[in-house]
Amino acid sequence: MTDFQCTLLTGAAGALGTQLRQSGTKLGKTVRLSDRRPCENLEAHEEDFPLDLSDFEAVSKAVKGCDAIVHMGGQPLEGPWETILNSNIVGGYNIYEAARQHGVKRIVYASSVHAIGYYERTETIDGTVPTRPDSLYGVSKTFVENLARYYFDKFGIETVCIRIGSSFPEPTDRRHLITWLSYADCRQLVEKCLSAPRVGFMIAYGMSNNSEAFWDNRTAAVLGYKPQDSADDYREKVFASTTQGDPNDPAVRFQGGSFCAAGHFEDEKK
Amino acid sequence: MTDFQCTLLTGAAGALGTQLRQSGTKLGKTVRLSDRRPCENLEAHEEDFPLDLSDFEAVSKAVKGCDAIVHMGGQPLEGPWETILNSNIVGGYNIYEAARQHGVKRIVYASSVHAIGYYERTETIDGTVPTRPDSLYGVSKTFVENLARYYFDKFGIETVCIRIGSSFPEPTDRRHLITWLSYADCRQLVEKCLSAPRVGFMIAYGMSNNSEAFWDNRTAAVLGYKPQDSADDYREKVFASTTQGDPNDPAVRFQGGSFCAAGHFEDEKK
Amino acid sequence: MTDFQCTLLTGAAGALGTQLRQSGTKLGKTVRLSDRRPCENLEAHEEDFPLDLSDFEAVSKAVKGCDAIVHMGGQPLEGPWETILNSNIVGGYNIYEAARQHGVKRIVYASSVHAIGYYERTETIDGTVPTRPDSLYGVSKTFVENLARYYFDKFGIETVCIRIGSSFPEPTDRRHLITWLSYADCRQLVEKCLSAPRVGFMIAYGMSNNSEAFWDNRTAAVLGYKPQDSADDYREKVFASTTQGDPNDPAVRFQGGSFCAAGHFEDEKK
Amino acid sequence: MTDFQCTLLTGAAGALGTQLRQSGTKLGKTVRLSDRRPCENLEAHEEDFPLDLSDFEAVSKAVKGCDAIVHMGGQPLEGPWETILNSNIVGGYNIYEAARQHGVKRIVYASSVHAIGYYERTETIDGTVPTRPDSLYGVSKTFVENLARYYFDKFGIETVCIRIGSSFPEPTDRRHLITWLSYADCRQLVEKCLSAPRVGFMIAYGMSNNSEAFWDNRTAAVLGYKPQDSADDYREKVFASTTQGDPNDPAVRFQGGSFCAAGHFEDEKK
Amino acid sequence: MTDFQCTLLTGAAGALGTQLRQSGTKLGKTVRLSDRRPCENLEAHEEDFPLDLSDFEAVSKAVKGCDAIVHMGGQPLEGPWETILNSNIVGGYNIYEAARQHGVKRIVYASSVHAIGYYERTETIDGTVPTRPDSLYGVSKTFVENLARYYFDKFGIETVCIRIGSSFPEPTDRRHLITWLSYADCRQLVEKCLSAPRVGFMIAYGMSNNSEAFWDNRTAAVLGYKPQDSADDYREKVFASTTQGDPNDPAVRFQGGSFCAAGHFEDEKK
Amino acid sequence: MTDFQCTLLTGAAGALGTQLRQSGTKLGKTVRLSDRRPCENLEAHEEDFPLDLSDFEAVSKAVKGCDAIVHMGGQPLEGPWETILNSNIVGGYNIYEAARQHGVKRIVYASSVHAIGYYERTETIDGTVPTRPDSLYGVSKTFVENLARYYFDKFGIETVCIRIGSSFPEPTDRRHLITWLSYADCRQLVEKCLSAPRVGFMIAYGMSNNSEAFWDNRTAAVLGYKPQDSADDYREKVFASTTQGDPNDPAVRFQGGSFCAAGHFEDEKK
Repeated sequence: MTDFQCTLLTGAAGALGTQLRQSGTKLGKTVRLSDRRPCENLEAHEEDFPLDLSDFEAVSKAVKGCDAIVHMGGQPLEGPWETILNSNIVGGYNIYEAARQHGVKRIVYASSVHAIGYYERTETIDGTVPTRPDSLYGVSKTFVENLARYYFDKFGIETVCIRIGSSFPEPTDRRHLITWLSYADCRQLVEKCLSAPRVGFMIAYGMSNNSEAFWDNRTAAVLGYKPQDSADDYREKVFASTTQGDPNDPAVRFQGGSFCAAGHFEDEKK
Repeated sequence: MTDFQCTLLTGAAGALGTQLRQSGTKLGKTVRLSDRRPCENLEAHEEDFPLDLSDFEAVSKAVKGCDAIVHMGGQPLEGPWETILNSNIVGGYNIYEAARQHGVKRIVYASSVHAIGYYERTETIDGTVPTRPDSLYGVSKTFVENLARYYFDKFGIETVCIRIGSSFPEPTDRRHLITWLSYADCRQLVEKCLSAPRVGFMIAYGMSNNSEAFWDNRTAAVLGYKPQDSADDYREKVFASTTQGDPNDPAVRFQGGSFCAAGHFEDEKK
Repeated sequence: MTDFQCTLLTGAAGALGTQLRQSGTKLGKTVRLSDRRPCENLEAHEEDFPLDLSDFEAVSKAVKGCDAIVHMGGQPLEGPWETILNSNIVGGYNIYEAARQHGVKRIVYASSVHAIGYYERTETIDGTVPTRPDSLYGVSKTFVENLARYYFDKFGIETVCIRIGSSFPEPTDRRHLITWLSYADCRQLVEKCLSAPRVGFMIAYGMSNNSEAFWDNRTAAVLGYKPQDSADDYREKVFASTTQGDPNDPAVRFQGGSFCAAGHFEDEKK
Repeated sequence: MTDFQCTLLTGAAGALGTQLRQSGTKLGKTVRLSDRRPCENLEAHEEDFPLDLSDFEAVSKAVKGCDAIVHMGGQPLEGPWETILNSNIVGGYNIYEAARQHGVKRIVYASSVHAIGYYERTETIDGTVPTRPDSLYGVSKTFVENLARYYFDKFGIETVCIRIGSSFPEPTDRRHLITWLSYADCRQLVEKCLSAPRVGFMIAYGMSNNSEAFWDNRTAAVLGYKPQDSADDYREKVFASTTQGDPNDPAVRFQGGSFCAAGHFEDEKK
Repeated sequence: MTDFQCTLLTGAAGALGTQLRQSGTKLGKTVRLSDRRPCENLEAHEEDFPLDLSDFEAVSKAVKGCDAIVHMGGQPLEGPWETILNSNIVGGYNIYEAARQHGVKRIVYASSVHAIGYYERTETIDGTVPTRPDSLYGVSKTFVENLARYYFDKFGIETVCIRIGSSFPEPTDRRHLITWLSYADCRQLVEKCLSAPRVGFMIAYGMSNNSEAFWDNRTAAVLGYKPQDSADDYREKVFASTTQGDPNDPAVRFQGGSFCAAGHFEDEKK
Repeated sequence: MTDFQCTLLTGAAGALGTQLRQSGTKLGKTVRLSDRRPCENLEAHEEDFPLDLSDFEAVSKAVKGCDAIVHMGGQPLEGPWETILNSNIVGGYNIYEAARQHGVKRIVYASSVHAIGYYERTETIDGTVPTRPDSLYGVSKTFVENLARYYFDKFGIETVCIRIGSSFPEPTDRRHLITWLSYADCRQLVEKCLSAPRVGFMIAYGMSNNSEAFWDNRTAAVLGYKPQDSADDYREKVFASTTQGDPNDPAVRFQGGSFCAAGHFEDEKK
């Protein structure tokens, strides 16, 4: 349903990237795949552009000729500062600056719950609250969100930042009953970000149709995202296999879960 | 389900008026029809009062004896200032002032998306935001909304202003996937406005159960409106028959659609 | 699904208390019942502790050994000041202070629509608006809500205050079409309050899945409450057996219904 | 301090118009005066264009050649509908449409407290709250505010709507202790509206530096308005010459004062 | 400047009560003094009604004939539950119920910072935020605020609740640089509460003109309160005689200061 | 007035750094100066630690032994990405991570208007609105604000981010009439950030007492900042030496001024 001619999908060999390839031409008439390693089993509409996000020239080459980007690549969880810096911060800049130079019109960015992880589980937030990252990883997500805002305000490149909760095959802990985003719903949400007539700069939360919720997604309702799956179906199974936990444990108390309970990555390593 | 004895339906020969006649005695035990031309095929509970809304005496005569009014009449889209002035502004005043003189208790007013057409498609608004009309037509809708507010605050006449999106047989462009109000849902909404125990002064948005939305209708939830139709059912058909459009085109960018892209009516004529 | 070892249920012989006993061990592995009169037909997991809420020693004895309390007890509607004072205010203090002394972790409190009864029917409110009680009964509900807030902020005892609308077998007047909470939904809501990993201090509204609504329950969405019943199913029946009423009657105009139309209890008695 | 070449001042022979003439070339290098009757004692920079606001041709002729308008003209208080309609509604349209046709860049509009008169005295409001007019006069003020919003959103003509409280030589009743706008402060405010680098569409409240206030003017702070007078200086005098009044009298209870206590103009006449 | 005929001042022998007596007939043409002990040095306009607030008959006798009450009496800081209950809760009810029975029109109530003591020092709050009491004393203040709201909504008795910060001869710790209310400003504020034409139900914060502030008093601006003193004048002295403290100490972190650092009164005694 | 033992001042040889050195021991009993070049004319309480902010080891050495940091260093305006990246992003991380490792308690950070530069001049914003950077420089400011939020939420290091407007000897263009922060007021503001008992994580706007304003600094009122200078004193001089400009020029329209009118730095160079 998209009218984009050529869409670059970064992180295409990762868990979510692999899922998104199933969207086929709903991402773009041509889909360029990029990851550090080559992608396998290319379909007719797919092209492979393996690259390191921190290499501007390589990114620029992959972006040239595209009118849309789905940016799922980069370090997907907390890591050493150098990794966060190169993969997510420098990598994020490279994507946006290449997009500007080559006339890309729209970007879908995989932001994260960890951009707002320090809100309490009992707080309901929408996409306009101040960010409260719970990790260097989370800080890097807010960096790209701000970069996206800037590239829209000054250069008109549209972005939807999807703050993805927990996109796994199924929910496995009690917090997932809130944050779970099924693979199918993840695909649908990205497709809707690409088919919407106008997105401007928007922040959407990536969760399935779960009864438990601490996110108010109304500010993104114009996307028409209509989740088909629900963590509710796993509720009894999850309760049976887990215990209640201490409500004062940061992993229980805050939206970011275990990221809030961890110390600084360098300390944790020791 | 209404307890009103006699309800005046203006614009009864128009597209929506004709639909609303199907609500039968849910509008009132007696329903007076009024339009510039006579109405046809009157049911037993219907009476015909053809009139020109700008003629106070005629309006007063039609209102006398009614305890409710469904005001769908007037110029239904942009037009010359003289038409807007006489049909919508003077006409609106005549309706409210006649209602006051004859003790009408409740009015349902067909306001429009064009009262707030200059909000961006990517903004989510409720019924309390400042109005941003997109046309002289839209300005006339805000005029009657303010008149209604005044007649409630001072004289206690209740009004629900329904800001109708796009009430057509089916959605035909991508913006309609948001704004579409099916005829059946339109009827239900008007009926609920009449059966609710108290409405005070209220602004409600008239849309069906569409996944895409830029309106937050919670402030009108007390009406109990529960739309049964959805533009989602037409999504693939609409996408197949239309193209994406330029997100910077005012007709795409703003909630009012093509009204925002048009210039002043007098200029457009030339 | 709860992990609580022992839960005290007050008001266990009342209408809602009796319903909640059907939740069985979802309230706690052991459930202590308390009311002024003894409870009957005890299940294996139930213990009976009849008591007067205004007697601190009795309350303390019943609380000792519990890690959770479902506080449904006290005067359930407007009454003489002495009754409100002793049953609800002193009784509420006794529950919270005993909870503190004995290490109770979580309390579910039966607050009421009458804590916010003076909001207009046409206003949509959430759990953060200033309270507007409609009776001494309502004032006593706000007292316990404040007490709960204090015991959480200073002593870490979690509470969900459920502002219950109208929990009856079925809706019987037009206001109930908004406020009705079915017994099954009431049970589910209380169970969810106990199984949620963290509730902190929270205010939730107790209503079923009714289309008509003046409450916005999003701030309590983290409970995962998913009502299964709806007053909509009774809509035609209720409309058929009632009349519209005067929208300016306080019983129609305000959320608290007939409590808003009543005078002071002492006067009413005369 | 303004850079405007030619400014039209309507209502130039009225009380406020006469005051504003004292601003001299701070309104514009040339100032065109218009009122129904000719203006007297013209200064070198002044030109006289007597006209009837409801006459589009006359208005158009006066506007041609101007780059700014200070629109103080029209019916200045409640009156018969015909007068409100012709002077304020048709007159307002004529001003804006002539401005569009002749390339006027900025308009300062004398709106009024009566556009929001039905807010309670004890409510603090800013320029973004929904309007609540207290009279047909007040409704006409909201009409022009909406017209101004439209002409800015579509045609880029900037407007500051000044909701003037009570601009008299001195406060004479207790409500004036809040609403008073001294003549000097009125002049300063209009001058600031003309010298500000950008005003877009803005609503400002016109009051002096009074300690009592029900308006929050922060949304207009960019004008740099810094009132030099205060109703406080008249407080003792006003209290000595007036009595407290009934707090439930609409004239005391609402921001619009006596306009809220009056009935419909037609009735009042009788 | 007040038009009240007879005003009851409770707590008249306390620190603030003694200060308020200096307002003389600005409180009322006659001022009835009440405290547990007799008041001394009565002026011509003063009458003495010593009483125990928990004794309804005594309160009723003192209230009879008054049209206003300044309620400063009761337990002025944390204490045993029995004292809080009798002096503040029962005492508060007695005042309001006697006021209702005897037609009192307006009450000024000495609420306290401790009604909202658990907001962080770094949060800016106004009078509409949910209460967060920091003590049983604070809970009792929220009880009377709710009682006042109820007596206004149902019976029309107006109240201003003044949340008094720290009213002492001068600020002596760093928190006082925010919360200090000079005696003169306290008098002025109470006088303004009595002379304002309408107060409805209002919450105002009682602080002098201190540069440091965590309260936004705009919602009470209609009182025209204009503080003449400032804790700034004591800033250097206070800094010189105190140390910075631990920002994580509840006494530093929260608005309620040392009340937030204290445990339950019963424990503290031990 | 500060109780800090040793404070690191970065950017100490820059324009604002030089001004802040005049605060003397109000910054700390010892003040360590750091800049890329050595600082001159050291006072008795000053120590010089020249360093490159992108060198973690050097930063760590300078931070060791400090309990506070005033971080004014880094690239002070738009520049090449490499410079922004190394000086502001990596430099910011180095400061916070060194602070964590060495137990620093509080940081004052020189953020900027350019973190929110894309708000319209006619919008009034406070410290809680979403950031809208107007340059890569602005994006780097939002990065450090997010980093600071993270280091407070997880590690308890307090920060005040001061979004500085235009800190120059005097205002020289019309936008400065809003954004000007005199050197003396800048010193006072930084001193207040250090002497406040608790700051948590806070965003304050750095402007003098200018009548024109688009910032609402209430959320930072607890600092007790009381500006002594005003751009108003330069108003006539600035108006005389400048022209009005085009209100649609991004440099006039947006809060960030000329930063909003500039393109990408790399393009601008060409």
